[in-house]
Amino acid sequence: MSVLIVGSTALDSIKTPKAENPRLLGGSASHAAIAASFFGPVKLVGVVGKDFPKRYIQLYQKHGIDLKGLQIQEGKTFHWSGEYELNMNNRRTLLTELGVFEKFTPHLPDVHKNSPFVLLANIAPALQHHVLDQMRRPKFVIADTMDLWLNIALEDLVRLLKRVDAFVLNDSEAHQLTKEDNVFAALRKIHQLGPKYVIIKKGSHGSVLSSPRGFFLCPAYPLHKVLDPTGAGDSFVGGLVGYLAHTKGNVDRNIRRAMIHGSVVASFCCEGFGVTRTTKVSAKDIDRRVRELEALVRF
Amino acid sequence: MSVLIVGSTALDSIKTPKAENPRLLGGSASHAAIAASFFGPVKLVGVVGKDFPKRYIQLYQKHGIDLKGLQIQEGKTFHWSGEYELNMNNRRTLLTELGVFEKFTPHLPDVHKNSPFVLLANIAPALQHHVLDQMRRPKFVIADTMDLWLNIALEDLVRLLKRVDAFVLNDSEAHQLTKEDNVFAALRKIHQLGPKYVIIKKGSHGSVLSSPRGFFLCPAYPLHKVLDPTGAGDSFVGGLVGYLAHTKGNVDRNIRRAMIHGSVVASFCCEGFGVTRTTKVSAKDIDRRVRELEALVRF
Repeated sequence: MSVLIVGSTALDSIKTPKAENPRLLGGSASHAAIAASFFGPVKLVGVVGKDFPKRYIQLYQKHGIDLKGLQIQEGKTFHWSGEYELNMNNRRTLLTELGVFEKFTPHLPDVHKNSPFVLLANIAPALQHHVLDQMRRPKFVIADTMDLWLNIALEDLVRLLKRVDAFVLNDSEAHQLTKEDNVFAALRKIHQLGPKYVIIKKGSHGSVLSSPRGFFLCPAYPLHKVLDPTGAGDSFVGGLVGYLAHTKGNVDRNIRRAMIHGSVVASFCCEGFGVTRTTKVSAKDIDRRVRELEALVRF
Repeated sequence: MSVLIVGSTALDSIKTPKAENPRLLGGSASHAAIAASFFGPVKLVGVVGKDFPKRYIQLYQKHGIDLKGLQIQEGKTFHWSGEYELNMNNRRTLLTELGVFEKFTPHLPDVHKNSPFVLLANIAPALQHHVLDQMRRPKFVIADTMDLWLNIALEDLVRLLKRVDAFVLNDSEAHQLTKEDNVFAALRKIHQLGPKYVIIKKGSHGSVLSSPRGFFLCPAYPLHKVLDPTGAGDSFVGGLVGYLAHTKGNVDRNIRRAMIHGSVVASFCCEGFGVTRTTKVSAKDIDRRVRELEALVRF
């Protein structure tokens, strides 16, 4: 079944002590759509400016991503620029130019409105609502977010949680939302806000699912070196929803393996700047790491 | 096969915003020996003063812990006092009275020198060396440590690593020792210092083993509330070595399940002050959490 992914489409300029990586393909929807594309067809909804490089359009297309929902508007593409410190752990934002993204309103082409699987990747909760308002009874809706929306659009976000099946956030966001330091206590509180499935991401420590069938402790693939974690969370949730949409059986049965597949795609994302590594991955590479993870947790 | 455990035996006074817990049984050897005792006989080597409460001697005995190696000396038992902040995450030391521990030299009773399994729980590396000097070809030696020894006795510690089969430390200590932020890169460097098995503990994020058979990602048991993490690391390594010593098959084959059992005993430790929860646990309770962990990582 097809997946609809709505989120940001951007250009990321990432500086490190050793290199400059200007105008990489970035944004939550880009990372998520490429991650999901390994498992089947994806429809992307986003906005870019006239300056958006043609090679990135071709890259989306190479991954079989349907671009009927990608608006190309007069003006500049959302551009984010950041710099890593020497140890690659801390990143600071140098520049944020919203460009055409500032007034983005996601309009769904009619054929998109029946998509059974919907990923509301990280964008303003009001836009996530607007997407759901246009949908015709999707089978499974999963939403991601970021600390910014907890700060400036908490009410919209809390209302959104009553409309989604699954909600993904990282541990510091979970703490911010619930005031709970403990991940499992936080999961319980977030369930009470609506979602049947709640996933808390813990970076290199993996992620935790809370679902009607209980908890699942999902490992992160062991990486000896992380080059650029930008987009890893988007790749995780993209891979997750892509796997879910294209695997037989119900969500409850498949969501654990879906997280594992998301985790593996996220691991590739961390090994290159932007999507440079992810876009070179094959289905075989993903399968190999999934089997490795199976062996890594067996006891 | 029997396990010899050498480390500190202490009284811990732990203050929280809600309660005072004076003179609890504490120390690395106490926690580790009680944890190991769930799997079979344990011999403890340590030192206490004449003020050491008789009820703690009885508690050791109730757990079948052989006390021939416990020295009872004129003077006071090592006493540590600490205070937790409101969120229970930060602990600060109020007082450290070394007492008889200051001049502790572990003397092994002759019958202890043949112990096949040895845990050098957290004490000064010089004392850990002194124990090994007295042993007759143990089958398996595992050592724990703490940041203090990395600061003031690094040379002794590095020499020790060439004499042990397994080494356990937490992630911040691994970073301090190797200057690597990445756990897997740190594991590789620590192997080069000698040990065949290296385990890095990550608190509520579980632990990672690096061994000749590769990595193992060991989960922590999900706790909704941590009352007192003091001794959790000691309980982990104690449970680990206890399981190893009393399970048929070689170390390479059993070490993963040994870590799981250690992880489970550590989870109980966190649910009470000192050893108050751990000492109320049954073998059945441990088995139940081991089975739960199996289900929690299955995908």
